[in-house]
Amino acid sequence: MNEKQKKYRIGIDMGGMSIKIGLVNEKNIICATNRIPTRLDIAPEELIQDMAESVRKLLYENQIADTDCLGIGIGSPGTVDENEGVVLYSNNFHWEQVAILSELRKYLKFELALANDADVAALGEQVAGAGMGCKNLILLTLGTGVGSGVILNGKIFHGPLRGGCELGHTVIQIDGEACTCGRRGCLEAYASATALMRMGREEAEKNPESLLNKYEKNAIDGKVIFDAQKAGDEAAKNVVERYETYLSVGIANFINIFRPERVVLGGGVAAQKEYLTDALQEKVNRLCFGGKYGQMAQITTSSLGNDAGIIGAANLIK
Amino acid sequence: MNEKQKKYRIGIDMGGMSIKIGLVNEKNIICATNRIPTRLDIAPEELIQDMAESVRKLLYENQIADTDCLGIGIGSPGTVDENEGVVLYSNNFHWEQVAILSELRKYLKFELALANDADVAALGEQVAGAGMGCKNLILLTLGTGVGSGVILNGKIFHGPLRGGCELGHTVIQIDGEACTCGRRGCLEAYASATALMRMGREEAEKNPESLLNKYEKNAIDGKVIFDAQKAGDEAAKNVVERYETYLSVGIANFINIFRPERVVLGGGVAAQKEYLTDALQEKVNRLCFGGKYGQMAQITTSSLGNDAGIIGAANLIK
Repeated sequence: MNEKQKKYRIGIDMGGMSIKIGLVNEKNIICATNRIPTRLDIAPEELIQDMAESVRKLLYENQIADTDCLGIGIGSPGTVDENEGVVLYSNNFHWEQVAILSELRKYLKFELALANDADVAALGEQVAGAGMGCKNLILLTLGTGVGSGVILNGKIFHGPLRGGCELGHTVIQIDGEACTCGRRGCLEAYASATALMRMGREEAEKNPESLLNKYEKNAIDGKVIFDAQKAGDEAAKNVVERYETYLSVGIANFINIFRPERVVLGGGVAAQKEYLTDALQEKVNRLCFGGKYGQMAQITTSSLGNDAGIIGAANLIK
Repeated sequence: MNEKQKKYRIGIDMGGMSIKIGLVNEKNIICATNRIPTRLDIAPEELIQDMAESVRKLLYENQIADTDCLGIGIGSPGTVDENEGVVLYSNNFHWEQVAILSELRKYLKFELALANDADVAALGEQVAGAGMGCKNLILLTLGTGVGSGVILNGKIFHGPLRGGCELGHTVIQIDGEACTCGRRGCLEAYASATALMRMGREEAEKNPESLLNKYEKNAIDGKVIFDAQKAGDEAAKNVVERYETYLSVGIANFINIFRPERVVLGGGVAAQKEYLTDALQEKVNRLCFGGKYGQMAQITTSSLGNDAGIIGAANLIK
C-alpha cells in the first residue's frame, strides 16, 4: 500500500473511570491508545482540553500527520444531541448541556462527531465485530444497566427527536420492579447484571442451603450465580431461568419490532457466551411473531468487548 | 394544469369483508372507488382475477388511459414479503404463500407494489392525513387487534428479515392476558378494542349497579364504555383508566425506541379523538425517558379513517 494512502481515525470512549483514546487504522485495528482519568472535580471545559491534549500526544507519538487523520469520533454516556454535538445530560459525568464538539474544535481542527456510547459500541460491532456481514443489528449491553444501540442499514438509528433509542427503558412488566429511570418494570430492572445480582441475593436469602450462601452477599455477582447454576444449585437454576425468561421477552419484543439480522449481547453477563445465547435463542424462537414465516435473528455475544467503543467512535467518521 | 400531466395511481385495500379499489390523483384525493366482496369460497387466484377486472372497470369508467396510471399498490392483512410480492400468511383471507403480484401481472401491465395493510395506512396518514408535515410517525390501530405501521424518514419501516414490525405483539406484562398470537401479555391483549370490551364486561359483572349493565353483555363496546365513563359511572371510569394506562405504557415504550414526531391512533377506539389523546399525552409525557431533554411525540388520531388504506397503498407507487 502506498504510504500516502494510510489514513487513520481517532475514537474516544468516554467511560465513568477513564477516557480512552484510540488510533484506528483503515482495517479497524486499534494501533495505539492513550487514556486519561475521568476527572469530575474539574469543569467539563477543562476535561475536554485534557482530551484534546491527549489526542495531540497520540498523534505526535505515532508520527501521524494531521493530514493523515480523517477525524475524531466520540462516544459519550447519557443523552446526546448528535447533530449539535452537545452532551445534553450525563449522569456518570455530572454533565448537563456541554457543547463538547465546539469545545474540542478550539484545539483540534479535524472533522468531529458525537454519539451515545451504546450506539457507538453497536456500530463498532457492526463494522468489525460480532455484527460483521450484517447491516441491521441490535446491541444490548447487560451491565449496571441495559444499554442499547440499533444499527439500521449500516447506520446508527436514533429517531428524529432527542432522547435516544433506549431499549432498556421499555416496560415488560407494568407496576414491576423500580427502574433507575423513575418508571417501573423496565427491561433494565430485569435484565441488567444488577438485576441478576439482586435476584441472586434474594434467592440466596430464601434458600439457606443454596451454594450462593458460600459467598458474602456483595460477592454474589453474575459469574457466581451462573457457576452455581452449572453446579446444579436449585436456587441458582431458578434465578438463571427467570433472568433468561425476562431477557428473552425483551429480545423477542425487539425482534418483533426491528426484525434485525443479529442481536448482539455485551456487558458483564455476556461473558457467558454460548451458554447464555443458546438458552436465549431457544426461548426467543418460540416467542416471536410470524410463525414459520417469521425469520429469526441470530443471538450472539460481542466479539470486540471494550474495544467496541473506540472502534465504533472512530467509525462515526466516514 | 396540462391535461397530459394528470397522473393517477390505484390503491387497493384488502379488507376482511370487501376489497376496496380506489383511483387516487396527484393530490392524494380519492377520485373514484370500486369494491368487490372478499370471497373466501374461491381460490386466491380467482379472487385476484376479480380484483384485476375491478381495476380495469375503474380505469375504464373514469376514462383513464393506461399511460396515465402510474401503478397499483396493495395493502394486505397478515405477513407479507414486500420484495417478492407474496402474501405469506393471512388469517383473515385464509391465504398462505399467495404470489399476489405475479398473479395480478397476468392481467395488469402496470408497476405493482405490496405491503402490509397497517404499514400502508401509516403511509397514508403520513402523506395525506394526521401525519402530514412529519417524516417519522407510528400508527397504532386500536380495533379487533392492535395493528401498527412505522414510517421512518418518509418510508415504511419493516426491518430486513420477514415477519413485520408488529408493535402490538410486544409484551408489556409477562405471563399476562392471552394474546391471539399465542404469547401472553402482548400490548394487543390490553390495548385493542377487544381488550377494552373484555375489561368492560368483566367490570360490569363485578359491579351490578354500573350503568354498563343497562346493555346486553355483547353490546358493551368501546363507545358504551366511554359514554358511561363520561356520565361518571365508577366501573366505567375504572376500565377507561386501566385501558389508558396500558396503552400509554405501550406508546411510551415506542417513543423510547423510535422517538417519532407523531403517534397516530386509528381504529374504533380512536373515535374518542382528543378525549382519548389528551389523557394519553398526559400519561405518556410522564413515562418517557430523557427527562427534560427528551423531546416528546405528539399523540393524535387518524384523520383519514378508512381512506388511509387506499391512499397509502397508492403511495407505494412513487
